[in-house]
Amino acid sequence: MSNNLHNELKKEFQLERLILFSDAVFAIAITLLVIEIKIPDEHEGITDKKLLVALRHLLPKFIGFIISFNLIGLYWTVHHRMFGWVTHFNRKLLLLNLIFLFFIALMPFSTGFYSEYAGPELYREQLKVPLTFYVLNLCCVGFINYWMWMQVTNPKNKLAEPLPDLVTIKTARLRSFTVPFIFLLMLPVAYLSNVLYAVWMPMLIPVVFRIGQKRIRKKYNESL
Amino acid sequence: MSNNLHNELKKEFQLERLILFSDAVFAIAITLLVIEIKIPDEHEGITDKKLLVALRHLLPKFIGFIISFNLIGLYWTVHHRMFGWVTHFNRKLLLLNLIFLFFIALMPFSTGFYSEYAGPELYREQLKVPLTFYVLNLCCVGFINYWMWMQVTNPKNKLAEPLPDLVTIKTARLRSFTVPFIFLLMLPVAYLSNVLYAVWMPMLIPVVFRIGQKRIRKKYNESL
Amino acid sequence: MSNNLHNELKKEFQLERLILFSDAVFAIAITLLVIEIKIPDEHEGITDKKLLVALRHLLPKFIGFIISFNLIGLYWTVHHRMFGWVTHFNRKLLLLNLIFLFFIALMPFSTGFYSEYAGPELYREQLKVPLTFYVLNLCCVGFINYWMWMQVTNPKNKLAEPLPDLVTIKTARLRSFTVPFIFLLMLPVAYLSNVLYAVWMPMLIPVVFRIGQKRIRKKYNESL
Amino acid sequence: MSNNLHNELKKEFQLERLILFSDAVFAIAITLLVIEIKIPDEHEGITDKKLLVALRHLLPKFIGFIISFNLIGLYWTVHHRMFGWVTHFNRKLLLLNLIFLFFIALMPFSTGFYSEYAGPELYREQLKVPLTFYVLNLCCVGFINYWMWMQVTNPKNKLAEPLPDLVTIKTARLRSFTVPFIFLLMLPVAYLSNVLYAVWMPMLIPVVFRIGQKRIRKKYNESL
Repeated sequence: MSNNLHNELKKEFQLERLILFSDAVFAIAITLLVIEIKIPDEHEGITDKKLLVALRHLLPKFIGFIISFNLIGLYWTVHHRMFGWVTHFNRKLLLLNLIFLFFIALMPFSTGFYSEYAGPELYREQLKVPLTFYVLNLCCVGFINYWMWMQVTNPKNKLAEPLPDLVTIKTARLRSFTVPFIFLLMLPVAYLSNVLYAVWMPMLIPVVFRIGQKRIRKKYNESL
Repeated sequence: MSNNLHNELKKEFQLERLILFSDAVFAIAITLLVIEIKIPDEHEGITDKKLLVALRHLLPKFIGFIISFNLIGLYWTVHHRMFGWVTHFNRKLLLLNLIFLFFIALMPFSTGFYSEYAGPELYREQLKVPLTFYVLNLCCVGFINYWMWMQVTNPKNKLAEPLPDLVTIKTARLRSFTVPFIFLLMLPVAYLSNVLYAVWMPMLIPVVFRIGQKRIRKKYNESL
Repeated sequence: MSNNLHNELKKEFQLERLILFSDAVFAIAITLLVIEIKIPDEHEGITDKKLLVALRHLLPKFIGFIISFNLIGLYWTVHHRMFGWVTHFNRKLLLLNLIFLFFIALMPFSTGFYSEYAGPELYREQLKVPLTFYVLNLCCVGFINYWMWMQVTNPKNKLAEPLPDLVTIKTARLRSFTVPFIFLLMLPVAYLSNVLYAVWMPMLIPVVFRIGQKRIRKKYNESL
Repeated sequence: MSNNLHNELKKEFQLERLILFSDAVFAIAITLLVIEIKIPDEHEGITDKKLLVALRHLLPKFIGFIISFNLIGLYWTVHHRMFGWVTHFNRKLLLLNLIFLFFIALMPFSTGFYSEYAGPELYREQLKVPLTFYVLNLCCVGFINYWMWMQVTNPKNKLAEPLPDLVTIKTARLRSFTVPFIFLLMLPVAYLSNVLYAVWMPMLIPVVFRIGQKRIRKKYNESL
């Protein structure tokens, strides 16, 4: 009995620890991104012009930093919102969350790898390996996030009580599926047509969001 | 109904998570600054004299570390004080906070870049690119911070209830505007006269603070 | 009297800080693992084929990252569960926890060292030093964790009140002993037969877990 | 009135944030220490013997890592205990804490610098610069910590209510003064006699502790 009560309290605090641990991994991964941008350190006959050239060479790195910062930031807010609903957790959710964090922790590497070769070589040589690596990393982040949301909102698991309303569940499900799915679509485009087309595809995400959201709202006749 | 109550509690915990996540990014950025100071590792015929020379070459790096530690520390205390007033948050504040953290996370890079060329080359070659990069980074930090404070203290947004008193609002507004504004003024000084004059301008900040604070207090006839 | 009450509250908050500090060290160590995977940065005549070769050379690093991420993640969940029972702490537990964190913080180094030489050289040269270093690091993590669990569940220490039930105590004791013990067994296998056999031994861990758990359950005639 | 109540709550949460921010800086600094130990990466004709030699060359780095991990860990526990008493904070304590964290954040650099030259050169060349740098960093950490304790336990500041009892105050004051003082004494010993004697002086710390503690206890006729 006393053990049961203790178990209750233990689980609640453990949930908090789980969330704060995840936050720390997010915060470290998002801040480590900048480490991959190497500071230019040529000193012989250095001029402002040469420094501007050095910065221009770093441009793909900066773009990679901005994109990945946004994506990790996005997934942090999604994680934030998801665990806002979670009231209990089980072994499976803990494990899924750890695997999810694994792919978040891998982001500084894949961002650095992708943006290392996102300069002129990308068009000239049509390099597909770095893009593939980056895209697969993002897909893993995205699909595990989707899987976690399916687990959390499955009433059988009793992880979220009360459950969010249906529109919230469906909208979040759509969102969390759309992002990795569009990223995955970048691969056939890159391999079958041109790497440069693939690079711009993530711009589609907000468009698809709008359309999907309208449909769901119409279907459930409710406003978010 | 139950969902509404849940929403309330969720939002409160989410606000806490938002703050602790920001703290973690601040803490990592402030600690990563030191990584850019490379340890001298020459071993052949090493003497104390040579080590002192090596340390003297690192002096700009140390100064950069100290300045940026102070500035990140300052913005952490400002963030600390600002979110002391925040009782609710919306999507816009979340987004602004993420962009704010982006520029905090960029600080180790721009500090390293600026202080890499803040040695003798700075006077000799009048290098403006590293200073400009550093100053623009600081301005982004400062102006987004100002923007966040405007959002938080705007009664329409209902982000801070109760609102801080007018003197607090005005003083903080002045402060958060002055810092990036003086940094921005460094650029015309650097480009039109001499980079060395620009470097010392931040010393003006406390002076301007004093004058501005006295005026506000006189106007509202109150003591802080 | 007032001091006693204060002491009580102080200790409780201090316990929380102790746990959150440990979480931060875990989170940083687990995220730093990725830093040891150096991004390929050859640019001359780069092709997808060459990049794939570069990635293949990084394979041991990735495997090391995955294994260590799992192990740190595992020990985080174990720490998580253990401190779910802790209600008080003493100097000894604080010290043990710091030593435990020391070996967690060492993990990025020993993972990097081990996986640096886990390529073809491992078989050809039968290198034992990196494996030994890695294994000893893991054994320290494991045995200190075992020692902490013995301390926490010792009724004399009054660190956990109420104490977990006997099956929980015994199962966790077995688990926390088995992991480092099997790792330790890798050393005689590596030195007396073949390094390659040793590398696969951790696969035994789940098997031994099952057998041990069944025996304990049978003995105490209870289900977990 | 409402503003006053808000101020109360704000201050309490701000104190918690201050502490958790400090914990994060401690955790990052203590984990970053390991980054300065570079993994041996020679591959040509590598054998276990050569790897052992490489590890032996890293020995000073390991010793530096162990010492600094202990010292940061020690100061974390001291900070932990000190803020266990703090119930309010003012601008001065906030500032002192930031300066304190500055010198904690500098520790990975000075540890790396000191241990880079703590090999055979230390005896042969009697290098004093790295030791001086390291010792001064530690002294800053120690004396600011002492200063903070003086501030916290000064009844005029009303930072700790109720105040700890006199024996606790005096013992902690003695401790926090002794550590940096003995470190400071290393400098005359290093400069006037032999660097090697200085290196072993920290061993005196526990002895001085015992003697000081006995005297204080006798004087106040109490047990801790």
